[in-house]
Amino acid sequence: MVQAWHLVSRPEGTLTMENVELRDVPLPPLAEGQIHVRNHWLSVDPITRLRMRGDYQGAQPPFALGEPIGGVATGVVVESRSPLFSPGDRVKHQLGWRDEAVGAAELFGKLPDIDMPEQYFMHYMGVVGLTAWSGLVKVAEARAGDVAFISAAGGGVGSAAVQIAKILGLRVIGSAGGAEKCAFVRSIGADAVIDYKAPGGMEEKLRQVAPEGIDVYLDNVGGDHLDAALGLANTHARFAISGTVGNYDNGEAATLRNFSRVVGQNIRLQGYIAPREYGADMLAFQHQMAEWIASGRISICESVFEGLERTPEAFISIFTGSIAGKILVRL
Amino acid sequence: MVQAWHLVSRPEGTLTMENVELRDVPLPPLAEGQIHVRNHWLSVDPITRLRMRGDYQGAQPPFALGEPIGGVATGVVVESRSPLFSPGDRVKHQLGWRDEAVGAAELFGKLPDIDMPEQYFMHYMGVVGLTAWSGLVKVAEARAGDVAFISAAGGGVGSAAVQIAKILGLRVIGSAGGAEKCAFVRSIGADAVIDYKAPGGMEEKLRQVAPEGIDVYLDNVGGDHLDAALGLANTHARFAISGTVGNYDNGEAATLRNFSRVVGQNIRLQGYIAPREYGADMLAFQHQMAEWIASGRISICESVFEGLERTPEAFISIFTGSIAGKILVRL
Repeated sequence: MVQAWHLVSRPEGTLTMENVELRDVPLPPLAEGQIHVRNHWLSVDPITRLRMRGDYQGAQPPFALGEPIGGVATGVVVESRSPLFSPGDRVKHQLGWRDEAVGAAELFGKLPDIDMPEQYFMHYMGVVGLTAWSGLVKVAEARAGDVAFISAAGGGVGSAAVQIAKILGLRVIGSAGGAEKCAFVRSIGADAVIDYKAPGGMEEKLRQVAPEGIDVYLDNVGGDHLDAALGLANTHARFAISGTVGNYDNGEAATLRNFSRVVGQNIRLQGYIAPREYGADMLAFQHQMAEWIASGRISICESVFEGLERTPEAFISIFTGSIAGKILVRL
Repeated sequence: MVQAWHLVSRPEGTLTMENVELRDVPLPPLAEGQIHVRNHWLSVDPITRLRMRGDYQGAQPPFALGEPIGGVATGVVVESRSPLFSPGDRVKHQLGWRDEAVGAAELFGKLPDIDMPEQYFMHYMGVVGLTAWSGLVKVAEARAGDVAFISAAGGGVGSAAVQIAKILGLRVIGSAGGAEKCAFVRSIGADAVIDYKAPGGMEEKLRQVAPEGIDVYLDNVGGDHLDAALGLANTHARFAISGTVGNYDNGEAATLRNFSRVVGQNIRLQGYIAPREYGADMLAFQHQMAEWIASGRISICESVFEGLERTPEAFISIFTGSIAGKILVRL
């Protein structure tokens, strides 16, 4: 039986189990030009929370009530009526929180012919890795010797960024919540770690570990992290802003006490959505990342939930924030 | 008798006449390497308010209590004991709110040999013009067809930016306070003008005149203007942030409801201090600007206060904001 998670009501604040329902769905016979995929892995990502808002305006539409929840997944083609795919092909798609998927061949992308486990293409070998790499190299133009501050350094993008920044020759300061996650961030090479859950203000904590200021900031949380980074930014600091997980649940305003330093320090803040801006660099990046992983210079950090039924739990854990590394669901 | 304005107490909020005093100052005999200048024109600028704060940290030091107030002035050399200057040379300096100045030749800059009235070199032909031009061309990389939103369009930087943007082929929306100033902004070529003092929210006002969104924003006020610009920014919009006059008096935090659009729209915010970043372009810019002025493509907008004793009044009028164009004092 094919099953898919559906959105039955719109969450206020954090998603709850009342907002979603696992339902049986029909599997129609394959039409000409379609393929049938068995999913092996699902990715849970903050963007999904945005699409649960009825008024979301973005590259992808909001989810309709009573309809299946989309999201990134990988799997294998089991049946094909398209000349583009053959049974056995490894594919990635966005048809989401379900165990099998049927759709037009154009909705699926073949994984590149690089010898890496398929779920890696949903994090370090995919958009997550590209976001970390392009944020550092393309957006923030990080150079050896720079001091980089990386928010949510225990997460998917953050943990990739910490490791890439060390390879590039930067001094790296990461933030994470709780002793365990901080220890993890130090274990992957960060020179200093800030526990944002510990008592005290972010700006003071950052000043203690970066008395010389910061040159690069990778932001995917916003709020007090961004304000602290503005407070410690050196002249010509570059901020790469890839998302504000902290604001996804509540849509609150950014209050930035240090914003006026943007002028005096000639700071650049650049928002980016990596696959849209740097999609053309993806394959070259994937080959580079595969080499870093194969040679042991980059360690993979995955936290895996087992079974389709645990998908909402895995998703909620992004926001409650105690789990290190990329969060995945294995079917 | 030589006179200079002195800072006698630090203002809270807007400067008042209690904070300053016009005092006689001695004119020492000229030492070797010094020159003596008779000022013709004084410029009043927001940066002076920042330097009145005891804790100001910037490229220039804060003013000491009981000491003369610095600022930009132009005049003519009346006596020289330096090989660098001869009597009759036109010069610019930062010795401020006084009728005559004596100092080391290094403190003075000779005006370039371009046939324009000397006070123009304190606005359109100087840092004010360079800030407008470099903000549009270098920082925001404005292109013909872009829609530009220009804050404080009735002021020095803003009125220069409106006219330069029209020459570059942009659609231009300016903001100004009050019907008179708005009429002025329209008279220098803006396609639409927003009266920020009229009832209603800035974002809604901007949406009405820019339903297609904005591509370029020149910010020197911050606050609700910046938030409105974020709310209407198109994908890849570029913001050039040259100062936050609105915050100079009170140092308050920026509250930006629309900040999360930085990510989704790939917006770039770049702070800059034009003479520091683009000083090397100054002479080329001055020749270009002189050509625009001489050919009538750019109109000069000056508001002149007569006499040294009116300098504080001229300065305060920057912040109370009812006067159009660059504000100057003629001695």
